[in-house]
Amino acid sequence: MKKTFIKSIEDPVLKEPQLIVGLPGVGNVGKIASDYLINELNAKRFAVLYSPHFPYHVTISEEGIIRLLNNEFFYFISEKKKPDLVILKGDSQSQTISGQYEVAGLITDVCKKFNIKKIITMGGYVNTNLDEDPKVFAAINHPDLNAWIEKSSIIKCEIGSPVVGTAGLLLGIAKLNDIKGICLLGETPGFISDAKAAKAILKQVLALTELDLDLSKLDEMYQELKEKLERIEEIEKEKGFIKKLKEEFSPDVKDLSYLG
Amino acid sequence: MKKTFIKSIEDPVLKEPQLIVGLPGVGNVGKIASDYLINELNAKRFAVLYSPHFPYHVTISEEGIIRLLNNEFFYFISEKKKPDLVILKGDSQSQTISGQYEVAGLITDVCKKFNIKKIITMGGYVNTNLDEDPKVFAAINHPDLNAWIEKSSIIKCEIGSPVVGTAGLLLGIAKLNDIKGICLLGETPGFISDAKAAKAILKQVLALTELDLDLSKLDEMYQELKEKLERIEEIEKEKGFIKKLKEEFSPDVKDLSYLG
Amino acid sequence: MKKTFIKSIEDPVLKEPQLIVGLPGVGNVGKIASDYLINELNAKRFAVLYSPHFPYHVTISEEGIIRLLNNEFFYFISEKKKPDLVILKGDSQSQTISGQYEVAGLITDVCKKFNIKKIITMGGYVNTNLDEDPKVFAAINHPDLNAWIEKSSIIKCEIGSPVVGTAGLLLGIAKLNDIKGICLLGETPGFISDAKAAKAILKQVLALTELDLDLSKLDEMYQELKEKLERIEEIEKEKGFIKKLKEEFSPDVKDLSYLG
Amino acid sequence: MKKTFIKSIEDPVLKEPQLIVGLPGVGNVGKIASDYLINELNAKRFAVLYSPHFPYHVTISEEGIIRLLNNEFFYFISEKKKPDLVILKGDSQSQTISGQYEVAGLITDVCKKFNIKKIITMGGYVNTNLDEDPKVFAAINHPDLNAWIEKSSIIKCEIGSPVVGTAGLLLGIAKLNDIKGICLLGETPGFISDAKAAKAILKQVLALTELDLDLSKLDEMYQELKEKLERIEEIEKEKGFIKKLKEEFSPDVKDLSYLG
Repeated sequence: MKKTFIKSIEDPVLKEPQLIVGLPGVGNVGKIASDYLINELNAKRFAVLYSPHFPYHVTISEEGIIRLLNNEFFYFISEKKKPDLVILKGDSQSQTISGQYEVAGLITDVCKKFNIKKIITMGGYVNTNLDEDPKVFAAINHPDLNAWIEKSSIIKCEIGSPVVGTAGLLLGIAKLNDIKGICLLGETPGFISDAKAAKAILKQVLALTELDLDLSKLDEMYQELKEKLERIEEIEKEKGFIKKLKEEFSPDVKDLSYLG
Repeated sequence: MKKTFIKSIEDPVLKEPQLIVGLPGVGNVGKIASDYLINELNAKRFAVLYSPHFPYHVTISEEGIIRLLNNEFFYFISEKKKPDLVILKGDSQSQTISGQYEVAGLITDVCKKFNIKKIITMGGYVNTNLDEDPKVFAAINHPDLNAWIEKSSIIKCEIGSPVVGTAGLLLGIAKLNDIKGICLLGETPGFISDAKAAKAILKQVLALTELDLDLSKLDEMYQELKEKLERIEEIEKEKGFIKKLKEEFSPDVKDLSYLG
Repeated sequence: MKKTFIKSIEDPVLKEPQLIVGLPGVGNVGKIASDYLINELNAKRFAVLYSPHFPYHVTISEEGIIRLLNNEFFYFISEKKKPDLVILKGDSQSQTISGQYEVAGLITDVCKKFNIKKIITMGGYVNTNLDEDPKVFAAINHPDLNAWIEKSSIIKCEIGSPVVGTAGLLLGIAKLNDIKGICLLGETPGFISDAKAAKAILKQVLALTELDLDLSKLDEMYQELKEKLERIEEIEKEKGFIKKLKEEFSPDVKDLSYLG
Repeated sequence: MKKTFIKSIEDPVLKEPQLIVGLPGVGNVGKIASDYLINELNAKRFAVLYSPHFPYHVTISEEGIIRLLNNEFFYFISEKKKPDLVILKGDSQSQTISGQYEVAGLITDVCKKFNIKKIITMGGYVNTNLDEDPKVFAAINHPDLNAWIEKSSIIKCEIGSPVVGTAGLLLGIAKLNDIKGICLLGETPGFISDAKAAKAILKQVLALTELDLDLSKLDEMYQELKEKLERIEEIEKEKGFIKKLKEEFSPDVKDLSYLG
């Protein structure tokens, strides 16, 4: 296994398909969003991408079975007149620089094969001081998409900003192949799996793809996480209190360590 | 030498062969186990794998001769009705991510060439608080192997656990080639060459392969190591005591260092 | 996208062309210089180089559009009897060792295609104690260029000095292809975008290429930067003063952190 | 430039040639030794090896000219009945793991082309407590060479010792191609360019190759270095003394830095 490759499972016929990409990254925003879409739409898997640039371990699937880390392509047939969807989710991104370009190049090949007209990539944008509802930032690879951004609440990324990883590189390579694309980045503190940011970008994805979908389960996910974090924080506080007590009332352990 | 390659020494004819893999890693559990099997079974070397992704040094063999780091394939012809064995041992694993995939891919090619039906990979699983007999954990790449685990004392690895290195990757790539496999991980504190953990997984390997083998020499190895460690610990304690004495009774050397 | 490649936009016919290279690096000297040349000469873009060894992110162009990081070739048709120019500017240099050689090799291929007679690479040379006008250092890949250096105020780099990155490698590879070249390095403290050092090397470039160009806008750029730096320094001083005050008059915050 | 390659300058006809390799490494022992041999024998350059795995900078040659880092092959025609010599010196070793194997593989190809019968690689062996004349250690890639070691004062490297870099890898790869070789390692403190260790291994090289050569210039080199080191040490001591004085008699500069 020397190269990134794609194993095809099915060759769906798709009308005017759009690709939506959500991979692990800052706050796991992209991954949460693509997983949610695939589950709620009951989208069907049709191809799997493997790469020798993914981390060198396997994972154990929900069926308790070893499998290579991968990126998976799903499709969803929309109602008449609406674009069909291809959704890409995954365990991981490439761990090497040239692997990042290799993987994004291969995803672009899939776009060409299925005649994909537009790409939407999803990710997170770190704001450690975030104290309100996450904003959504966007970057586009073609001026045609400006009109859409202007009528939305989305903020355009500033000139010179980097967009890191597959979410950015894919749109850069796609552009060389005349495929239009937009990258949506949800504001997130970054250190948590941020369902709130995922919801914020999915709202925009629904508008872009004319899709109808209930996003309320993401509120529940966020609520659960929040409660879990609060519990952890409390435990940590208590631990800190106990630790402080111990330190005050016990002799200096270090000085004794060698006399054992 | 730009690619991983295999140098063939002999082309054995094998009946229903199973591959057993033990390479260096956590606690050296896999390596100890494969070395033990090869020595006790007097298995015969038939192929050697070299890779430009192994560390960039040579080693000096027991015959006092320089040789490249490698992974070596041995075979063992079992009694009638029992599966023949291929055993893979080695000096090292790949030092680069893509090299890890390249090596595991080439081992899979060997499996296909010799029509190997099942792979058993062996390794360690770190538990720094280990204070009793090491447990054995397992991960499988096909549900057929569940039955076997259920009737044993093995614990299944949890969903989402990573299995790192060749022990995992080989089973991931093998799965894509319809070769079934199981990974056995022995609990180990990790920082020692752990013959006790190796014995624990070899017990399970014997059951899986219907092999009969005396494992008692691993007890001796473990006993020797334990005594050596205790001696080191004592010396360290004494050193610490002396160091403390010296610190208390000598002037501050640092202040004088520039005045010579 | 597995290899560095060049996308051609136009195939200009050039007379006795010379290549001038300025990429990001120490003090951004080379980049400032090549950007300036291209803007002031209104040079025309004719080819773009992309590489999987550039950083794995895209940038947002001045038109607000995502694009891959790249190196861009421009040409400028000079008056009769003077050499035409090819100018290479870029966002980035390769992030891997072998990528550095790959990119420099491909730029050499462009030189051969357009029958380029001489290469001038531009960069910075760190001098952290710089307190006067930056000197210009040079290294050449052919003794023919010595004559030119001797009649200028340029200082030759010492024997054994390394010239790092594309500015150096390109001249090393070009030499193997019988293309002459000179590397000009402007002295710079290194931590700022140094328009002063850029001006110093551009003066020499003008002499080498018989080009006429007003460099005074670089003085303005330098002046602006200087004022900005002074403002930052003042703010930092003030912050430091306030911080000191706070530390003296507030209780030890750390001790309270766990008691909330 | 994507691969390691060799540029041929001349195709000498050599009788029973032996290859002697000395590249930069610990204490620069190998490099000093090969440089010395080439200079004293007035050996002739016939091929140059370039690699995209060498450091990504050029150097400035003694003629003041930029050149790529390289490894250079020289030959020396010996008197009748004695073996001719090929000597390999160089600026650098590969900076990547797989590059190390690639370069050593290509050197082996040169050995096959010129029908080289024996390889001697030279390097250093760190001993930070070295207080007497450096010993020479050796590792061989074929038992035939044992006889030679046994009648010399050389110490055999212990079983399991690693021999790092080209000095080791070359003999590992050569062995796969049935070329015999020995690695000679001179004891060195490692942090200096150690002409004394170089002399110690060259003595053995002369015996192995039946070569007659005056090694006394290495004593002078060592003496010069020693005096230089002593002067540096003295300066450092003085600096330390002055620094200490300054610290005692000046106010705490740090406390004032923010108040300007």
